[in-house]
Amino acid sequence: MAAVAVTLVRRLLRSGPRPGLCGAGGREPGAAPRRAIGHGRVAVELDSSTGVAVMKMENLPVNSLSLDFLTEFLISLEKLENDRGCRGVILTSGAPKIFSAGLDIMEMYGKSAEHYAEFWKAVQEMWLRLYQSNMVTIAAINGSSPAGGCLMAVCCDYRIMAENPKYSIGLNETQLGIVAPFWFKDTMVNTIGNRATERSLELGLLYSPPEAHKIGLVDQLVPEEKIQSTAAAVMSQWLAIPDHARQITKSMMRKPTVDRLLAHRESDIQNFVSFITKDSIQKSLQMYMEMLKQRRG
Amino acid sequence: MAAVAVTLVRRLLRSGPRPGLCGAGGREPGAAPRRAIGHGRVAVELDSSTGVAVMKMENLPVNSLSLDFLTEFLISLEKLENDRGCRGVILTSGAPKIFSAGLDIMEMYGKSAEHYAEFWKAVQEMWLRLYQSNMVTIAAINGSSPAGGCLMAVCCDYRIMAENPKYSIGLNETQLGIVAPFWFKDTMVNTIGNRATERSLELGLLYSPPEAHKIGLVDQLVPEEKIQSTAAAVMSQWLAIPDHARQITKSMMRKPTVDRLLAHRESDIQNFVSFITKDSIQKSLQMYMEMLKQRRG
Amino acid sequence: MAAVAVTLVRRLLRSGPRPGLCGAGGREPGAAPRRAIGHGRVAVELDSSTGVAVMKMENLPVNSLSLDFLTEFLISLEKLENDRGCRGVILTSGAPKIFSAGLDIMEMYGKSAEHYAEFWKAVQEMWLRLYQSNMVTIAAINGSSPAGGCLMAVCCDYRIMAENPKYSIGLNETQLGIVAPFWFKDTMVNTIGNRATERSLELGLLYSPPEAHKIGLVDQLVPEEKIQSTAAAVMSQWLAIPDHARQITKSMMRKPTVDRLLAHRESDIQNFVSFITKDSIQKSLQMYMEMLKQRRG
Repeated sequence: MAAVAVTLVRRLLRSGPRPGLCGAGGREPGAAPRRAIGHGRVAVELDSSTGVAVMKMENLPVNSLSLDFLTEFLISLEKLENDRGCRGVILTSGAPKIFSAGLDIMEMYGKSAEHYAEFWKAVQEMWLRLYQSNMVTIAAINGSSPAGGCLMAVCCDYRIMAENPKYSIGLNETQLGIVAPFWFKDTMVNTIGNRATERSLELGLLYSPPEAHKIGLVDQLVPEEKIQSTAAAVMSQWLAIPDHARQITKSMMRKPTVDRLLAHRESDIQNFVSFITKDSIQKSLQMYMEMLKQRRG
Repeated sequence: MAAVAVTLVRRLLRSGPRPGLCGAGGREPGAAPRRAIGHGRVAVELDSSTGVAVMKMENLPVNSLSLDFLTEFLISLEKLENDRGCRGVILTSGAPKIFSAGLDIMEMYGKSAEHYAEFWKAVQEMWLRLYQSNMVTIAAINGSSPAGGCLMAVCCDYRIMAENPKYSIGLNETQLGIVAPFWFKDTMVNTIGNRATERSLELGLLYSPPEAHKIGLVDQLVPEEKIQSTAAAVMSQWLAIPDHARQITKSMMRKPTVDRLLAHRESDIQNFVSFITKDSIQKSLQMYMEMLKQRRG
Repeated sequence: MAAVAVTLVRRLLRSGPRPGLCGAGGREPGAAPRRAIGHGRVAVELDSSTGVAVMKMENLPVNSLSLDFLTEFLISLEKLENDRGCRGVILTSGAPKIFSAGLDIMEMYGKSAEHYAEFWKAVQEMWLRLYQSNMVTIAAINGSSPAGGCLMAVCCDYRIMAENPKYSIGLNETQLGIVAPFWFKDTMVNTIGNRATERSLELGLLYSPPEAHKIGLVDQLVPEEKIQSTAAAVMSQWLAIPDHARQITKSMMRKPTVDRLLAHRESDIQNFVSFITKDSIQKSLQMYMEMLKQRRG
């Protein structure tokens, strides 16, 4: 995975910070105990008194998982992972009404096979790092969370969703004519079981908060204004458990699923590239993007 | 599987149509758009305007899965599978009060080992074809559905059951002193999870419609008179999803389970034959048949 | 497994009966049909008219799973397993307010590596024998059941719990800084599914009876005074199924999980020994024991 990390760092240096989108606020040295990290698309605030970081996704307008965003996300996560002062992460959104819209379609349309491969590797890497993070990870889902956005949420240890009827969550890939890969599926099966996953993925279902709660896709619903305080309270419950015992247990639960991707990582990339470069798929993505444009226009 | 298909076609030609049981109605050429197919035990009506076929089982009185019935069922299903105009199948019963009574005990009693092997191969084939059908399959369960009848239902993508308290559904093999094979079990685990399957199979439980709905063995309950219209409405929801993406997703979900049978198909046949030819098993089947006769008499 | 059994018998002969704790009552030859077996820590009463034995754990005060207790438990279970007159076992507690407190911490603290290995082998053996018993096994959980106590319960075919709000059940190992081994986890996943197990084990959750019932950790709640009569009634439902068919079905459901431990039995022992001999683990067990002492004092 080291090679991937190096590639990602190179990407970040190439793409550089995007000051306009920086939501982390300026650093205030000496002002204890919060510490802001990040390059603009991911605002990270670590409270050293609790050991809890908040990672706020701010890739406006909809937190699309572009290659640049994934790169920055991974570097931010890695930093926290290596910081002994950080024991838990709350993943949330700084964009209004959306947690994350999922994979950036612009990265899957009209690009080279090399680009698709690089992009997919970054998506895999995000899943690998988040799903087996040693930290306690809590998703504070304060907006809609389709496709890759849902994947990020189900990678966490616990999911709290704002009970806003306008929000929805689910792996809706088939609705776009594309297919969630086996490791999205595995993560979903691990969370809501085989039958609910089968129905959910074949129909590309997006669930309202109460439906998502009922099938176990999210663990808890709260009024929107209480989502961050609830996440902090749940986090302290998780941090009451000795890290070492919790981490070994988490790894025991998740390692077989992780190993399945690691064993087929290259062929999974090849599958993605050969699927996404198909004329029919490129055409339906084009139609989808035009539909999105018309909606906005 | 080609060899199996050839054998099955031969069987059908030997056994021929059974005009008295034909429930498909006469063909009316020119009368658009419904088209009737079938040889009497399975009435198939394909609506070419919607791409949806209704397969009505009419092996009276109780839709026992005899070798002849299975053969005809498989040929009908194969025809639809190869018909580009057919995208979905609603499986239902033309027999009163029963969806299917399951495997025909007459095929398992007092016959040769060769016959048992041929029969079991046909049961396997039915499962293989139905469970991984490329079409959307919906079971409209308008009657009781024990054992093999339950298996047919859980092979489908969605199950709607008439909420008639006289009906029940389940894998009740152990109540007869026999054992559901591992692929019945796998299909059940995929549908209702491990623990519910364990209890259900060990006790040979038959569930009332509300119980079946509660544990997820059926997806939806409706008044009996609404079962066909509900099936049609649900089907149109499934057909709104691009076939290709849905089919790949379905295969991803079900292939590991299918591969397990394919890897052990011959030994599974041998297991069945050596089990069913045991004196003790033949004796309990005989007792069961006598009990059935007395009940009817 | 023969070697283990021999070792266990040797242990029992060395440790001998503990008359003071004998709860089985004296044998009364000729007094039909109940028959008492056991050496004091496990009182066994077999009703030969029903074929149902009650195994009452009486290792006071809290039914800790010490090496001596496990040895006696295994020998008692083995006797019943080999007794053609015994078809079902009800596992319950003779200690007030507790089903079993789980593994005896005294066996895991300040002993030799050889001792730890011998102890762990006995824990494995208990799981192997109980989880794949040919008899119907019903847990009548008449008290709290943490850690190894919970494991014993989930090994049974059916769990009935007294609805006393003071009782709780769960695999709470992480709360003590230790980790449930993979076969504890597998048994839990088989019972309550992957997601509930993940959350449950990482947080070391102890569930109240209603919570345990809701997630499927126990099958039925009853008022405390009805627990034995309910267990007997449920048992007769299970015994209505032909033994042979039920046993094959049970084995089909559980064998893959059992085989996983059998394939890694030695390395699992080594893991336990190297984990438990760590200074940090010995220290936290010491602190835990001191906390327990202070609570009592």
